[in-house]
Amino acid sequence: IENKRETELASLLAEVHYADVAEIINELDEEHATYLLKLLDSEKTSETLTELDEDVREAILSNFSAKEIAGELDELDTDDAADIIGGLPKGIVQEVISEIEDREHAKDIVDLLRYSENSAGGLMAKELVKVNENWNVLTCVKEMRAQAENVTRVHSIYVVDDEDKLKGRLSLKDLLTTSTKTNIKDVYIPKVDYVNVNEKPEEVAKIMSKYDLEAIPVIDEIGRLVGRITIDDIVDVIKEEAEKDYQLAAGISQDVEADDSIWQLTKARLPWLFIGMMGGIGAASIINVYEGAFVKFPILLAFIPLMQATAGNVGVQSSAIVVQGLANDTIKGEVWGRLGKELLLGLVNGLALAFVFLFISHFGFDTSYLVSLTVGIALVTVIVNAAIIGTFIPIFLQKRGIDPAIATGPFITTSNDVLGILIYFSIAKVILNF
Amino acid sequence: IENKRETELASLLAEVHYADVAEIINELDEEHATYLLKLLDSEKTSETLTELDEDVREAILSNFSAKEIAGELDELDTDDAADIIGGLPKGIVQEVISEIEDREHAKDIVDLLRYSENSAGGLMAKELVKVNENWNVLTCVKEMRAQAENVTRVHSIYVVDDEDKLKGRLSLKDLLTTSTKTNIKDVYIPKVDYVNVNEKPEEVAKIMSKYDLEAIPVIDEIGRLVGRITIDDIVDVIKEEAEKDYQLAAGISQDVEADDSIWQLTKARLPWLFIGMMGGIGAASIINVYEGAFVKFPILLAFIPLMQATAGNVGVQSSAIVVQGLANDTIKGEVWGRLGKELLLGLVNGLALAFVFLFISHFGFDTSYLVSLTVGIALVTVIVNAAIIGTFIPIFLQKRGIDPAIATGPFITTSNDVLGILIYFSIAKVILNF
Repeated sequence: IENKRETELASLLAEVHYADVAEIINELDEEHATYLLKLLDSEKTSETLTELDEDVREAILSNFSAKEIAGELDELDTDDAADIIGGLPKGIVQEVISEIEDREHAKDIVDLLRYSENSAGGLMAKELVKVNENWNVLTCVKEMRAQAENVTRVHSIYVVDDEDKLKGRLSLKDLLTTSTKTNIKDVYIPKVDYVNVNEKPEEVAKIMSKYDLEAIPVIDEIGRLVGRITIDDIVDVIKEEAEKDYQLAAGISQDVEADDSIWQLTKARLPWLFIGMMGGIGAASIINVYEGAFVKFPILLAFIPLMQATAGNVGVQSSAIVVQGLANDTIKGEVWGRLGKELLLGLVNGLALAFVFLFISHFGFDTSYLVSLTVGIALVTVIVNAAIIGTFIPIFLQKRGIDPAIATGPFITTSNDVLGILIYFSIAKVILNF
Repeated sequence: IENKRETELASLLAEVHYADVAEIINELDEEHATYLLKLLDSEKTSETLTELDEDVREAILSNFSAKEIAGELDELDTDDAADIIGGLPKGIVQEVISEIEDREHAKDIVDLLRYSENSAGGLMAKELVKVNENWNVLTCVKEMRAQAENVTRVHSIYVVDDEDKLKGRLSLKDLLTTSTKTNIKDVYIPKVDYVNVNEKPEEVAKIMSKYDLEAIPVIDEIGRLVGRITIDDIVDVIKEEAEKDYQLAAGISQDVEADDSIWQLTKARLPWLFIGMMGGIGAASIINVYEGAFVKFPILLAFIPLMQATAGNVGVQSSAIVVQGLANDTIKGEVWGRLGKELLLGLVNGLALAFVFLFISHFGFDTSYLVSLTVGIALVTVIVNAAIIGTFIPIFLQKRGIDPAIATGPFITTSNDVLGILIYFSIAKVILNF
């Protein structure tokens, strides 16, 4: 399709949504991608840019002049524009900003660049509709009309005082049904949810989804209204958060995708494999110490993988439930209650498994009654222990202010592996007396 | 606080958002919860009901008469009302519906009950603003005003023909700036995203978040507009979906929470532990077969946990990335390309680990050079194998129409455990010639 049949391509692309155009461009090489992007009309070019993968976008923009980039930013909302600038090489940023025609817009974008990506300030846009509490309804409607020009979707009208401090919100219905001379002060709703610029994105997501909000105002340290966060940005936060936790549970740090380079994937995966290997070497040392037992009861060794697999699985199950509970705020405080419950749960699951094991080993393996009993008891103990460790570590990390999600996956599996083997041999030593 | 100081409690609760009231009530016993709920004003009672945990809600509603329940449903949007009715005991449903005062509302709720919870139809609400393409702007505005009464948030105005088929949408701006005599037919925007009633919720979520939509119309099999899904419901879908995948990866089937009963948790967790145990018993059988090797090279046994942990970790990492890629549609077709990449990645990671292992074993363990080499080569092979299995199984399941998320966690760990030990001993047998 790439034989430079410009007019055909252009009319074809005009029919396609910018999110789909972005998906196509993500798959092309740099030259073709730039070519295709320049065929689009200006508004669509800028919208497509916001949807591209970051590395693709940066590669393409390196073929654009500062003036061209500034032209695209002029079309975008301040939050999307700030995101794009954030990805540009340092040297060019100043030039791009100075080329933005709408100076108000440029000022807003520069303001947004100051906030960390990992805060409400980094998510918000400057586009919003706000009115002064001292205006009357008539002035208010006039001002609103001017402001609404720049705002794609008006979710709420926010009311501020002379110092720009957030006082409340205004319902469109009230505005239309009261006399034009009424003061805003007398009609606005003083109850309004808001977040601080420094709030974490996950907290903002929690608040907005709990209260079913479609937009939330953002205030600075002294209560001034500085921006607004809309639900579509929060959907992205929720998805990223879920993906990050999922990857951590699988032993993958950093945000990687299937299409990333071998080097990026190795960086994200290898450290966890090292942790696992250290555990394996630790287990080897323990087994070495108990070498004497091999001679008398070689069958004991055959059940090492069983202990290890069970300990690992139970640990991950327990920690996953706790990590989710902590993320949803459904677990509060009561550490001992939770530990007690996991202990009971571990006991129930452990006894069930041990019973089945005794049954299988009786018919399937040539083991003495005492060895089977040893394995059975060890199984229950290992499960209870893994359940408690899996519950305790995430709660402990959370209390220390560390993301408990790192406690799932290889971390918990490895510690339970080593502990499980240690418990197994200790119990065997007592019962079989070697 | 529960000393029946009604007026104080009532005024206290009046200040609190219904989502917070619901959180409080979730923690109370049935009697207190019912008491508290009846203190709220009617609108807040119904909104609080929608936010309660399902089992709590059902317990409380069993203390309400059919008439009382119907009164609450009258206040709710059709989708929330249908959700509540869906949880009531069969016997009472008919009675509750016949007690709903607004008969149109009752009809809409009954319509919604027909759709499966796991479809767009189960998510949508009947509340929306629609206009006929044959009306003129004046009629349209009049009708809209009447319809908007029942709709909390008007996101879009949908245009239908005489048979109620969805034709497009109307921009409020266009409506206000054109002459009142213009026909809707001449001003509406024919391009509109929509979903079919039978579409899966995850698909709806994908479409809405890709195109940043805040509401999407739902059509039936012959194109008639039957409802509307709003973004707040989709946020819930995305969160549930993420939680389900996370739990599956941790070996927990069914949707459970930390607060669920021991029995529910056991049901969700025990089956996966059985799978793991079967793997452990399989591994024991393999080790038993190679018993001859123990005598000559006992140190080989000490590294079983190392093989197993590494195989498990790599398998989970590979499968997690593939499962996520499949969920996001970023992996398309090209199975061989992906397998080749994982093979290369496994080789890089495996060689890195093997090198470190040789270093450690040289100084830390009393092993012969040949044994160390055996373990090193086995490590690389096990990692490459686990990476390929972890990639292949989810893709295979997806092609068969099975949710690939079940392929992460215990399932992949167990198969890699057993295979890893088999590979380890096979390589040892060849190199050490026992």
